[in-house]
Amino acid sequence: MSVRSVENSRIVIVGAGNLATCLGVALQKAGIVPQAVWSRTETSAVALAKRLDCKATTDIASLPDADIVITAVSDDALPLVAKLLAARYKEALLVHTAGSVPMNIWADAGAVRYGVFYPMQTFSKAKEVDFSRLGIFVESNSEADCFLLEKFSSKLTNKVYRATSAQRAYLHIAAVFACNFSNAMYAMAADLLREQGLPFEVMLPLIDETAAKLHFLSPSEAQTGPARRGDKQVMASHRSKLSGEYAEIYDIISKYISDKAVVK
Amino acid sequence: MSVRSVENSRIVIVGAGNLATCLGVALQKAGIVPQAVWSRTETSAVALAKRLDCKATTDIASLPDADIVITAVSDDALPLVAKLLAARYKEALLVHTAGSVPMNIWADAGAVRYGVFYPMQTFSKAKEVDFSRLGIFVESNSEADCFLLEKFSSKLTNKVYRATSAQRAYLHIAAVFACNFSNAMYAMAADLLREQGLPFEVMLPLIDETAAKLHFLSPSEAQTGPARRGDKQVMASHRSKLSGEYAEIYDIISKYISDKAVVK
Repeated sequence: MSVRSVENSRIVIVGAGNLATCLGVALQKAGIVPQAVWSRTETSAVALAKRLDCKATTDIASLPDADIVITAVSDDALPLVAKLLAARYKEALLVHTAGSVPMNIWADAGAVRYGVFYPMQTFSKAKEVDFSRLGIFVESNSEADCFLLEKFSSKLTNKVYRATSAQRAYLHIAAVFACNFSNAMYAMAADLLREQGLPFEVMLPLIDETAAKLHFLSPSEAQTGPARRGDKQVMASHRSKLSGEYAEIYDIISKYISDKAVVK
Repeated sequence: MSVRSVENSRIVIVGAGNLATCLGVALQKAGIVPQAVWSRTETSAVALAKRLDCKATTDIASLPDADIVITAVSDDALPLVAKLLAARYKEALLVHTAGSVPMNIWADAGAVRYGVFYPMQTFSKAKEVDFSRLGIFVESNSEADCFLLEKFSSKLTNKVYRATSAQRAYLHIAAVFACNFSNAMYAMAADLLREQGLPFEVMLPLIDETAAKLHFLSPSEAQTGPARRGDKQVMASHRSKLSGEYAEIYDIISKYISDKAVVK
């Protein structure tokens, strides 16, 4: 383990996508300037490195020495990138940021010190993310490195948790439901309105309020609508206006809501 | 049509539930104090009337004269309440607030001047709603009353639209997807986390961000996750951990997201 303080840790960011970008900016704001950025494509590496005022490279072997190397590449690319990083870094702590990838991918790649640094959020390059509001889940093959990751993460947020690879898999599935699938519901609403020539913007206050409610009610307490009320007449009227996957999704989610309402 | 200014309109609120409460409070803030509140149950009528500093009653026949009577009762109760209101009020404009109920319910009830005042939002008694941010959809059997409803609504928000009963039905279905069904996705995430002993709160920044993104990206632009990326390995891993309706919903929504990603 490095004797440097966390603030002085030499950080390398591997990847230049949405997560890598938001993380780099957040680290910079926390006073931790990454040493270098790697990306497969030079344009991406240079774009992020410029933003962070650090070195850019497309060659893992030429990355500078580091204390913590944070990988934020696609799940598909991770096995190969992990292998190259394990060959380059014998002393640094190597971590990935993928919800669904077990920590052991590092052992398979031949890494010595490794772990996971999983920030629970949806990232877009174009939108800065306030890390102080989100949870970061860490895991490592050594207690000392787990502690180091906790200390490092605590520079970004005070919501730092340990999670095993098995727990993280469920966190990721839950995130798919809460984020990707709720967004799909917004998309279906947009489809239905578009067909009727109605503007989607009218949904925004409703969507904001639905999310905001969860800060003081559980999702099952916050549930409203015809399925929650058991209003069969309204549901039948809605169903008569839907077809295909919209009808199928209407039925299955309404059933879930009704069943839960009965259990309560 | 009344010669009074909108500010001096005599308003009666019929109902004392979530919508009636939020609307009453919003009207009061806009300087329009309702004359009276009716509810089937005395406790509810008195509770809201006290908050609005107006008269409470459980007897429709004894409601005071009014210019606009706003009904916010359950869809089931509406036909009977509409009949009683049509008998009580020959000159007032009678409107309901239900997304899925056609305007003609008033004609069936024998009303003379009638229409719809539909604020697009999810309402909870416990949480004040900022009406200036939401859209209100109006409809009436006369052009003059439609204009009156627009003028009245504009005291609450500048997002006032005309919508036919047919359009409003689709607005309501879209709202079910965007609000009730996205909340069901949050509930499923909470179920999955609870089973693993993980806290739901870690999802809140993710949920907030997912909603916030829609203010500058369309839902299909904002879509992320394994189904959007076509990441079959992650999806198979998720699927292996799900069963029953969770698995079924995972498949059908992932398919919707994948299909849309291909179309783009």
